[in-house]
Amino acid sequence: MTATSGVIYIKGLAQPLLADGSVTSAQGFRAGALAAGIKASGKPDLGIWAADVECVAAATFTPNKFPAAPVVLSRTRLDAADGRAQAVVFNAGNANACNGRQGLSDATETTRLAAEKLGISPDLVLVASTGIIGVPMPMERVRQGIPRLELRSDAGNAAAQAIMTTDTRPKESAIAIEIGGKEVRIGAMTKGVGMIHPNMATMLAFIGTDANLDKRFARTALKRAVDRTFNMITVDGDTSTNDSCFLLANGLSGAPTLAASSADAERFAEALEAVCTDLARKMAADGEGASKLLQVDVTGAATEADARAAARAVVGSSLVKAALHGEDPNWGRIFAAVGNSSAKVDASRAALWIGSVQVARDGIGTGVSKDEARAQMHGAEVQMRVDLGLGSSEARAWGCDLTEAYVVENSSYST
Amino acid sequence: MTATSGVIYIKGLAQPLLADGSVTSAQGFRAGALAAGIKASGKPDLGIWAADVECVAAATFTPNKFPAAPVVLSRTRLDAADGRAQAVVFNAGNANACNGRQGLSDATETTRLAAEKLGISPDLVLVASTGIIGVPMPMERVRQGIPRLELRSDAGNAAAQAIMTTDTRPKESAIAIEIGGKEVRIGAMTKGVGMIHPNMATMLAFIGTDANLDKRFARTALKRAVDRTFNMITVDGDTSTNDSCFLLANGLSGAPTLAASSADAERFAEALEAVCTDLARKMAADGEGASKLLQVDVTGAATEADARAAARAVVGSSLVKAALHGEDPNWGRIFAAVGNSSAKVDASRAALWIGSVQVARDGIGTGVSKDEARAQMHGAEVQMRVDLGLGSSEARAWGCDLTEAYVVENSSYST
Repeated sequence: MTATSGVIYIKGLAQPLLADGSVTSAQGFRAGALAAGIKASGKPDLGIWAADVECVAAATFTPNKFPAAPVVLSRTRLDAADGRAQAVVFNAGNANACNGRQGLSDATETTRLAAEKLGISPDLVLVASTGIIGVPMPMERVRQGIPRLELRSDAGNAAAQAIMTTDTRPKESAIAIEIGGKEVRIGAMTKGVGMIHPNMATMLAFIGTDANLDKRFARTALKRAVDRTFNMITVDGDTSTNDSCFLLANGLSGAPTLAASSADAERFAEALEAVCTDLARKMAADGEGASKLLQVDVTGAATEADARAAARAVVGSSLVKAALHGEDPNWGRIFAAVGNSSAKVDASRAALWIGSVQVARDGIGTGVSKDEARAQMHGAEVQMRVDLGLGSSEARAWGCDLTEAYVVENSSYST
Repeated sequence: MTATSGVIYIKGLAQPLLADGSVTSAQGFRAGALAAGIKASGKPDLGIWAADVECVAAATFTPNKFPAAPVVLSRTRLDAADGRAQAVVFNAGNANACNGRQGLSDATETTRLAAEKLGISPDLVLVASTGIIGVPMPMERVRQGIPRLELRSDAGNAAAQAIMTTDTRPKESAIAIEIGGKEVRIGAMTKGVGMIHPNMATMLAFIGTDANLDKRFARTALKRAVDRTFNMITVDGDTSTNDSCFLLANGLSGAPTLAASSADAERFAEALEAVCTDLARKMAADGEGASKLLQVDVTGAATEADARAAARAVVGSSLVKAALHGEDPNWGRIFAAVGNSSAKVDASRAALWIGSVQVARDGIGTGVSKDEARAQMHGAEVQMRVDLGLGSSEARAWGCDLTEAYVVENSSYST
């Protein structure tokens, strides 16, 4: 994958990402959102995203041991319905986490209200929430809001706005590929700029496709894409209680069913990863207080697990992030971060590049001037590469700089 | 252990910490320091800490896979000398890390110069460095500096100043206990306020005692103390390439030799832990940019490993640290941090206190007012306790708040 002037071209795929992509870019998806009064700001905070027909569904959820009620309920529903769903009701402004039985009861009522609105079974409705933890859901506002929602196929952007919390902009992406002579689309939205860390890095992600997916393939393709994208970004090292990523496939493209081990299925999986990559980069770039996107490649690792661990350690290091903010090419901190990870390292074989400038070789500085290295740290995106010199495995991770604004934003979030 | 108006009294020990304790508080230790020109600021940056006689020695070092040359050399020396040493030569301003073979050669020459100065074998001299990574040691300044050092028994504070980097104040502590009718002292100094994270949390720690220690007991007592103190503090989640903790026991008190499994040995181990606790708290409180010390107890854990992991997760959470800075009792972040750790958790059994106010019970908020909780976050030290309700294991960790000043300090460290 290469990035050229903002358009991301995917290796092996003819089409680039769609302009103005959204979570309703694929056929047969609608969304609706409004301001129900859950956010103190009065901004949009409640919505439904739904398919016109029952879908094959897959999802990944937070590993946090205090999972929020919507996570508990959605996981249970998906299991009970054997991987089928049709809609997700969502809100921002309140995470409905650490609310005990009342939280679960509120989440259940929310899905029931959404099901009534849509005229479908509550068993097919999932739920996602984001916002403050430990405050009961203002259910009166949810009860008043859901019946007033208007679902339209052109309201993807409105939905993306309604899941924002400290996000400064909505995050959407879509792609079209051809499968068996039919156009197949994938449209998605995400939110999440604080409490972001693998795994899961995304707080909330919604991905809708009109492809026909075999149930098992849907799961493996989603897991692979999430592992390589949302699970490879970090903003602050905290993993939220609410992280959820949903994939709904409604089959309305009329394209043949995709299952594992076919060339078409592989092309679909790559397209899915392309959309998730685009969104992962957008999330990292919009990290709380961030002014720079950091992309770190680790190459030459002994194993893929090593490469992933090392790459995530670098984007997760407070010292690297602070140095990035100041455009300070203090490369020893990058090696130190790698050295703290679980990756196998031979200090005498490691090499390091900031942008296109090699700053270390065989574990030692190359003597390149500080100004030359610093020049590679200007601009909104900075790239680093560590070569461990031990094998052929590699991984890529994304993060952002640590700024005074992050501290200011997070020192008074609840007040 | 309880803290009352600044004096820390140790359970089972008659004596409190000594006033004006230093690394030369025990009999038969001397130190010397001066400004050799390694630090750009012109402040003291080079020194030797030495015992009058050969000592039983123990040490713990960074697990970072890019260990600095002084770490590699000191570890090798200690092994070769079978746990005996007499002095440590140290500098601040340059970490001598990521410097390859030249780094090792420079560290070796530095110990040789110190040995000549002291008139002892280089095999008995250890070395420690702290400062910027990846810049060759300015050896000409070291060669000029070491012969000019003057070692005195009242120069402990001067040594503590010479190991400071971004520390705002020297960190020293000492204690006296009676063993077999003799007064035994332990005196220590540490530095380290950035790149601090278990394990090892201390960048550099020097502990000298005039006790007579069995070699094996010296190692186990040091490891236990370090695990419970320096390895339980975190400032920014980064573990340095240079972390080293040295214990020298010269036996000059004339007290009987302490070995494992005696009541006297246990009293010594407790005294050692008391000194390390005092220094760990001082380091956390002086975390880069910190304005508040955070002490977190985890109780009711299923295992001690769980308690340790959970306590460290809370003090290590950027979101908790930022909320602490703003005195924002956003307690959901504390549970979320615990939920991200490896500790076993049953969300419905967890309880949480900020100071003396219980903010959550059975995993749900108690409904205590935000103002009441916030009042517990005023002042220079804030305490939190999480009870997991699963067992009887507990652990304590220390950290600090995340402030704008941390970011400012670390965005231009090398420039």
